[in-house]
Amino acid sequence: MFTRNRMAAAPVLVGREHLKKGRGHLRAVLVNSGNANCATGAPGLRAAEAGCAALARALGTAPLSVLPSSTGIIGVPLPVEKIVSAVPALAAGLASGEPALRSFGAAIMTTDLTPKLASASFRVGGAVVSLAGVAKGSGMIHPDMATMLVYIFCDIEAAPAALKSQLKTAVDLSFNSISVDGDTSTNDTVLLLASGASGVKLSSPGAAQLFGQALRGVCAALAEQVVRDGEGAKHLVRLRVGGASSALQAREVARAIANSPLVKTAWAGCDPNWGRMYSTIGTSVAPVDPAKVSIAIGPHKVFSSGKAVAFDKNAVHEVLKRPEYVISIGLGLGKACAEFLTCDLTEEYIRINADYST
Amino acid sequence: MFTRNRMAAAPVLVGREHLKKGRGHLRAVLVNSGNANCATGAPGLRAAEAGCAALARALGTAPLSVLPSSTGIIGVPLPVEKIVSAVPALAAGLASGEPALRSFGAAIMTTDLTPKLASASFRVGGAVVSLAGVAKGSGMIHPDMATMLVYIFCDIEAAPAALKSQLKTAVDLSFNSISVDGDTSTNDTVLLLASGASGVKLSSPGAAQLFGQALRGVCAALAEQVVRDGEGAKHLVRLRVGGASSALQAREVARAIANSPLVKTAWAGCDPNWGRMYSTIGTSVAPVDPAKVSIAIGPHKVFSSGKAVAFDKNAVHEVLKRPEYVISIGLGLGKACAEFLTCDLTEEYIRINADYST
Repeated sequence: MFTRNRMAAAPVLVGREHLKKGRGHLRAVLVNSGNANCATGAPGLRAAEAGCAALARALGTAPLSVLPSSTGIIGVPLPVEKIVSAVPALAAGLASGEPALRSFGAAIMTTDLTPKLASASFRVGGAVVSLAGVAKGSGMIHPDMATMLVYIFCDIEAAPAALKSQLKTAVDLSFNSISVDGDTSTNDTVLLLASGASGVKLSSPGAAQLFGQALRGVCAALAEQVVRDGEGAKHLVRLRVGGASSALQAREVARAIANSPLVKTAWAGCDPNWGRMYSTIGTSVAPVDPAKVSIAIGPHKVFSSGKAVAFDKNAVHEVLKRPEYVISIGLGLGKACAEFLTCDLTEEYIRINADYST
Repeated sequence: MFTRNRMAAAPVLVGREHLKKGRGHLRAVLVNSGNANCATGAPGLRAAEAGCAALARALGTAPLSVLPSSTGIIGVPLPVEKIVSAVPALAAGLASGEPALRSFGAAIMTTDLTPKLASASFRVGGAVVSLAGVAKGSGMIHPDMATMLVYIFCDIEAAPAALKSQLKTAVDLSFNSISVDGDTSTNDTVLLLASGASGVKLSSPGAAQLFGQALRGVCAALAEQVVRDGEGAKHLVRLRVGGASSALQAREVARAIANSPLVKTAWAGCDPNWGRMYSTIGTSVAPVDPAKVSIAIGPHKVFSSGKAVAFDKNAVHEVLKRPEYVISIGLGLGKACAEFLTCDLTEEYIRINADYST
């Protein structure tokens, strides 16, 4: 799955083409950080292809079997010769296991403070199926994908179409349900690769359900790590919107709250200013009834069925000072709900982003 | 014209009703700052009505002839008894002229640093028609109205419907073409009041055109003052989007750029990071062609027809250090364009908003 940004970067364009021409079969990924290879025109496309060709040579496979990714600054030519000259040593040093995954995770960081890893496994009959995921991302994080690169490796045997369908569900519930700053990047990629080495077929009885569960778990864990590492973030906020007339409305309300600078700065100040969330609910496209709305911060109701509730300010303040808490919104209209992970907007975010390119 | 936020505050609900029942005829406005009288339920509606009744008594007019407005914190009961007890002295002290307007402008400020005034006049035959506007607003500013209260007084003679149509055009080109933080408030109001005292009818030959011009000028001047006073803003950015396939697309692209935290923080750092604007253009709903896009910062092209342009970094940095500059985006698709005023996102914005309620 790739970004929906119409200014998709060269590696995304090349990656889409490789997947299409290769019918979803891949053998390797080639990732660089520091340069997004975006807004780089035809030379950018040639650079992405040159990287793939070099890695394919080193691994004895076809260039179409390599998927490129880039993350970093936009509009600067990719110095692909550096990548090409590094490829032989990289190919010679390929390794498996957790240290190798961790080293991959660390290599693709930009403003990330930590590498992001998650894994899961399950049994089908006597065989064990394993999944391991690596992600990067901390700013420009937004539903519909953001400067976020995610690679999930597994050893199940499956057709590309079946994997894609599993991935779509898992991504909607994880990476498309988080927001750091509401910006959508040109380079986002979530890739699911399956080697088949476990000998277990995704189509075998019960395997699809177990696989789906494991995949959603890995995606959710990685998505949470991305928000935790949100640029300048001091609080992880778990927004739960219930009582919506549709899942779309629940998610839209959650997203609006997660993207409001006024709400996010109040969270940064541990300020129980629920009025800003209330106001943001009012921007919902679908109708809402002010008299049916309820808001709780942690276990404390602050607004109930359209009425402000007297609450213990110190107790609510204590909740808001925690590194992680839940905010529950009830719309009182129906049964649809959504969960959304987001973070606060701090002065640190501004410092990180105010002077990035120079 | 009122906010489109579905959580409209009590004074907005009461004001709408007064205008409807009174067929657009008003004699007075009653404005308080510090408390938005929003999310306050039935007691909030009664409080707004009580204020109007008190002012109507003092002025010897009907409560329906009074329009209430409130701005400030959401969810706290309005202490209307304070307003009611202050009304007789306010009514006795009514005055005309610029000092009175300035005092009104100062009284309705919240986080505003300066009162906002603008005026215009024109001649029809031997008579002079005058307009004077007062506005408040510095955060929660967003197209489709935000915590922004605007009152425009004039002495032309006109039917409410004709004034409304004039106002709609002027607001679309001014208050609906600015953004500070992308938040939409529950209390926004733009009111145009006409006394008829000039003796000039809006329907007289040539008057409507002159009036429209003057009204657009007053609205544009007030809207610009609101953005200049954007919470924590250090730079006023005039976004010009041209070559769009429709006016809607031009405005949508301008709005997306104006609301991107990553773009706004780059402006705060005077960072010529045009890639962030490029990326934001890609979130346009209508198709864009990356190969046709151009971006200029002040007079300096930094991206032209899909290609990065070598530019003088020092010269561009000098432009970005100015308190005010123009950024031009060309889409190369059609002839539609839009102008949008916005500002940067600074650490000061976070400081102002992180601890507002407590």
